[in-house]
Amino acid sequence: MKIDGTPYRSVWVDEQDRWSVRIIDQTKLPWKIDILRLTDAPAVAHAIRSMQVRGAPLIGAVAAYGLCLSLRQDSSTQAMEDAAATLVQTRPTAVNLRWAIERMLTRLRNTVAGDRVRVAYQEAAAICDEDVAQCEAIGRNGAELIDEAARRKPGKPVNILTHCNAGWLATVDWGTALAPVYMAHDEGLPVHVWVDETRPRIQGAALTAWELGRHGVKHTVISDNAGGHLMQHGEVDLVIVGTDRVTRAGDVANKIGTYLKALAARDNDVPFWVALPSSTIDWTVSDGIGEIPIEERSPTEVTTVTGRALDGSLATVRIAAADSPAANPAFDVTPARLVTGLITERGRCEASEKGLRRLFPERAG
Amino acid sequence: MKIDGTPYRSVWVDEQDRWSVRIIDQTKLPWKIDILRLTDAPAVAHAIRSMQVRGAPLIGAVAAYGLCLSLRQDSSTQAMEDAAATLVQTRPTAVNLRWAIERMLTRLRNTVAGDRVRVAYQEAAAICDEDVAQCEAIGRNGAELIDEAARRKPGKPVNILTHCNAGWLATVDWGTALAPVYMAHDEGLPVHVWVDETRPRIQGAALTAWELGRHGVKHTVISDNAGGHLMQHGEVDLVIVGTDRVTRAGDVANKIGTYLKALAARDNDVPFWVALPSSTIDWTVSDGIGEIPIEERSPTEVTTVTGRALDGSLATVRIAAADSPAANPAFDVTPARLVTGLITERGRCEASEKGLRRLFPERAG
Repeated sequence: MKIDGTPYRSVWVDEQDRWSVRIIDQTKLPWKIDILRLTDAPAVAHAIRSMQVRGAPLIGAVAAYGLCLSLRQDSSTQAMEDAAATLVQTRPTAVNLRWAIERMLTRLRNTVAGDRVRVAYQEAAAICDEDVAQCEAIGRNGAELIDEAARRKPGKPVNILTHCNAGWLATVDWGTALAPVYMAHDEGLPVHVWVDETRPRIQGAALTAWELGRHGVKHTVISDNAGGHLMQHGEVDLVIVGTDRVTRAGDVANKIGTYLKALAARDNDVPFWVALPSSTIDWTVSDGIGEIPIEERSPTEVTTVTGRALDGSLATVRIAAADSPAANPAFDVTPARLVTGLITERGRCEASEKGLRRLFPERAG
Repeated sequence: MKIDGTPYRSVWVDEQDRWSVRIIDQTKLPWKIDILRLTDAPAVAHAIRSMQVRGAPLIGAVAAYGLCLSLRQDSSTQAMEDAAATLVQTRPTAVNLRWAIERMLTRLRNTVAGDRVRVAYQEAAAICDEDVAQCEAIGRNGAELIDEAARRKPGKPVNILTHCNAGWLATVDWGTALAPVYMAHDEGLPVHVWVDETRPRIQGAALTAWELGRHGVKHTVISDNAGGHLMQHGEVDLVIVGTDRVTRAGDVANKIGTYLKALAARDNDVPFWVALPSSTIDWTVSDGIGEIPIEERSPTEVTTVTGRALDGSLATVRIAAADSPAANPAFDVTPARLVTGLITERGRCEASEKGLRRLFPERAG
């Protein structure tokens, strides 16, 4: 995608040295485009944990490059396995992290140590390129839904509600939930996005609103509390969100609060779609509520807010009463029964084992 | 209630001059206890509009005193009616404002101009005293629910989730939703409150958490997004919220986001109770979603957050991307079908016309 006319991906290999890894520090957005250079695996682990990079597909891609950087320093099997284990543990909920590292290891375990660095960079680049292609396909498959909604209300904008950020910043390019929006917008369909601010970390107001604004897509930021009211009054035609892990039964883990929007969508007959590349499907798990680990992050994310002060500097303010404790579960699980369907790179399907196996028959049995 | 041992109400007549009106500036809490002295009706209107005082019962009581202050300057019928009309328009959703002003006018229209100031102060004081008595009764009627929940899990705390602030700061004393919590706590029942932070204005994290902390009630602040997840995992025994207007059919207008919690409560078989004095019932309205006006407040409340900076000063930071617009509906309506029941000063009832008329038979016909 473009920022003020310049094309970017959200992770890339430095064009000069051809080995260090470049990311946009997402904790500084939307106030500053701060491009970081990561040179070792600990820096990659820190970037993932501190959410300088976030979004299920993107953290998988960045972790793959983390393994590349580790192999540059020590390409032995032991060091490789240790680095992989450390990277996998940086965040527990998104399954793409595990998927990307396992894919790298599958390739690298059968590669002699001397070839591992070269092969690792090849594989990481392939993961990135495939993610871009998959997100573009998700965009096409999802844009059809927006097109259908547009036909039902000619001349009026299609109102899409999204939660958190599942745009190009959450993937290598295009995004998952926002790919259909960008695609529809580029095709000239009138779209307007309700952007949940997404407390506690405000990825909606900070990242999604910024992305959409840079691309010229009409949008309005709302508090996470507002979506139900808007749906009651017919102001939402479609909900599209991303996901950090989908079980084979179609349960959807996503940013905390997604479940509440799914309930409101169901109560108001608003279609609730979830967009994902197939790397986000966890075929080993069925019951999302019982089996997906939910990351508990620092209470400070709830008791404080960071933004831009009047003087332009970034400032953090405490918003909760001084001695009050806080809890911060970062994700929740939306049961498959509340999901209208899944939008994948292969097409759309019902959020169920049957639906998923129809699209991915190679996983059968 | 007490702040560090000193008993307070949230509005009172100055003890020295016996006519000016004292309030705690709630926009400064929890950081500073700033007691304001209001001396004319425009100051009262400003205090209500700017949310220096908020909470349906409290703004009714403060508006009543606003009429007293106006009558001190001009006790003519015309001036009285003009002042009443201005005060009623300060906020559109809560019905207590209209109720309190109409009660004052009913009394004052039959009073000669020369007696109006004296009678008005009497009536405003009566409104306050009745509010305190009603909230205390709500506390008793609601504490029974907490007691029942405690019996079902001996030795474990009863987890109550609340949204926004319906504590003593939202009424003259005791609160509505929090009155049962205070009552149960004072009786020695083990209670723990999940406090929704309540964006955009953060009345939960700032006011409810502060109130509960001052009174020694265990609580944990959460983002508004977290409640559904907690309910899915059995961490919520009971939801109790306040309300700004209940229709005769039992629909409940309350702070934006309440509806989402009601949906989650229903989906997880968690009882969802609404606490209110009868002055919050609007007998003229049946369909809450269609008929209750929802206040749209400034988008700045969504795009910015105010809190305490590291240096102790109050600071406002912008959190949304610089050029992104925002929308800010301040309330939503929870349909009666999602409400387990209403807790009033006369007892508990079903959220329905039948339930309400059983408790308030004088409104029949």
